[in-house]
Amino acid sequence: MGTCSIASLPVLCYPHDMSELRLNLVTRAWVIIAKERANRPGDFKKVRSREEIPTYEANCPFCPGNEGMTPPETYRVAGEKGWKIRVTANKYGALSQTGTRMRCTDGLRRSVSGVGTHEVIVETPFHNGSIALMDVPALRDILMAYKNRFSDAYSNPNVGHVILFKNHGVGAGTSLKHPHAQLIGSPVTPIQIRDRMEAYVHFYDDTGRCLICMMTEMEREDQTRIILETDEFLTFIPYAALSPFHIWIFPKRHAASFVGITERELDDLAINLKATLEKLYHGLGDPDFNFIIRSNRPKDADSEYFHWYMSIIPRVTMMAGFELGSGMYINTGIPEESADFLRNVPVGA
Amino acid sequence: MGTCSIASLPVLCYPHDMSELRLNLVTRAWVIIAKERANRPGDFKKVRSREEIPTYEANCPFCPGNEGMTPPETYRVAGEKGWKIRVTANKYGALSQTGTRMRCTDGLRRSVSGVGTHEVIVETPFHNGSIALMDVPALRDILMAYKNRFSDAYSNPNVGHVILFKNHGVGAGTSLKHPHAQLIGSPVTPIQIRDRMEAYVHFYDDTGRCLICMMTEMEREDQTRIILETDEFLTFIPYAALSPFHIWIFPKRHAASFVGITERELDDLAINLKATLEKLYHGLGDPDFNFIIRSNRPKDADSEYFHWYMSIIPRVTMMAGFELGSGMYINTGIPEESADFLRNVPVGA
Repeated sequence: MGTCSIASLPVLCYPHDMSELRLNLVTRAWVIIAKERANRPGDFKKVRSREEIPTYEANCPFCPGNEGMTPPETYRVAGEKGWKIRVTANKYGALSQTGTRMRCTDGLRRSVSGVGTHEVIVETPFHNGSIALMDVPALRDILMAYKNRFSDAYSNPNVGHVILFKNHGVGAGTSLKHPHAQLIGSPVTPIQIRDRMEAYVHFYDDTGRCLICMMTEMEREDQTRIILETDEFLTFIPYAALSPFHIWIFPKRHAASFVGITERELDDLAINLKATLEKLYHGLGDPDFNFIIRSNRPKDADSEYFHWYMSIIPRVTMMAGFELGSGMYINTGIPEESADFLRNVPVGA
Repeated sequence: MGTCSIASLPVLCYPHDMSELRLNLVTRAWVIIAKERANRPGDFKKVRSREEIPTYEANCPFCPGNEGMTPPETYRVAGEKGWKIRVTANKYGALSQTGTRMRCTDGLRRSVSGVGTHEVIVETPFHNGSIALMDVPALRDILMAYKNRFSDAYSNPNVGHVILFKNHGVGAGTSLKHPHAQLIGSPVTPIQIRDRMEAYVHFYDDTGRCLICMMTEMEREDQTRIILETDEFLTFIPYAALSPFHIWIFPKRHAASFVGITERELDDLAINLKATLEKLYHGLGDPDFNFIIRSNRPKDADSEYFHWYMSIIPRVTMMAGFELGSGMYINTGIPEESADFLRNVPVGA
């Protein structure tokens, strides 16, 4: 294999219009940037009209008046409908709040009892609400709720690792339309998390730097993949984005755990997230998406290696056999073009 | 954490009706078997009627008469429409058949030129064909084509690892309806493949046995997850299946590479695959699915550690934020119930 090692920016040792494989240094996954079959960014815009959703739905367990349909509340922000935000255990939780963490080993079978936490964070009393269209103070309240529940989940001794995520739209795996996020506190630490931690530690060994801090510097130098920047956060399409509008929001201050987010950062993240989601909403026609907060646990909040961040994955393409069979991805959008497209979507009009 | 280590079969150290986490020893991924929110197997059956597809579609590049719309043929099985099976390079391939494998390192950017192989294996001249409804000899021809193209792909010096896969249905990422499989020869070995190889090697170090051979023994002892068994292959739902009807087909004979499949095994795999796909077709209403052949490269065909196999993933549920954010899965089907359901779907009627 030929090699070139270069210090300056857009020099490539193969033609610029050729497909290329890019390595994601966080996940260690290679992504094929399929330039020859790439779509223009605007081609991913959803054209089908979104169904009309009512503000209230009598059978929805998350609508005001139906509070009795859910398990008891664990968090509430008061509001004119009684509440603005409401958190409860997931009635059909994947994991049980009570019980003992037990591990069984039987031949090749390894299992752990399904204990932990599974909560639902109802983000608005309005059944047809959309997080992308809420105002900044409402988003700040939601982020504050995330922080509170994330922190609280770790007080459960059965919880080893917490994943906070949102599924928006059927294509992103939502079963209930009413806007909500979820939090799962797993009794085991997922291998994916341990593998990534190892990548961060290796990088630190190698360079004496946090990988995410260095990526932030690189993206600010490059400029080409940045969507927007606020005082405390940088929003961009990763160099090795796994899909056309895969977005990372990095806090500029080094901090390993979301639990340490400051008041000032919460203010700023609400502003940033509002603009980012609005660009997706208008630029791509309210796409289905997932977002995830990737964070160390509170007791490892001081790690020099790890750096928490937010990942948004609009579901504009499908994972198919190649992705399942290799863990690699084919991205039919070019990250620099996708970023340019979203950068130019006007917001706050 | 409590622990129990037991030798006999269905003993668990926590209640049987409780959700549990199961470890997939091949992928090292934990799967939450969400018993409390589990659906009955029949609930996953697709009820919406499948659209009527014509036998021939004038604009389809894979239909007979339209051979000029594709790049030159690399393989053909003759038949009454001129051909029964036809293989060509993918016209909009993710990777380029020509060019030099070059690696660039530039700051935090690591890239490799997009060279390799991307082929399309057209499995029938009939636009509305379905692999699940073909007869055994037709399936054998298709498997033989897979073997030929798999083997041939490695003769390209730019190819490091080959993934052979099929996407059936829109929900499995197909863009063209005409039945076809694909083969991608990547210039890099995916991290997922290297990680799994490491798991196999560790297992061998630990036990002196091939993991897949031992799993085959365990599944035959357990019986509960077996769907069907033929002379040379075992079809079952893995203990830690990532989704309700995730299926593995293991060759009983230890062999690291698909390229070494014998004539007798090809005969038997055609019989096995026909019955397996027919059970999915009738039991789940022709679900969208992906399948993948997981195999070592030909030059490592003698490995004691690795064992090739086939994986089928019906897309009856969605990957959502939790899966993306953790690499873990929530399975809302219980593997033993799913296997029982498919075992009892009659075939060959």
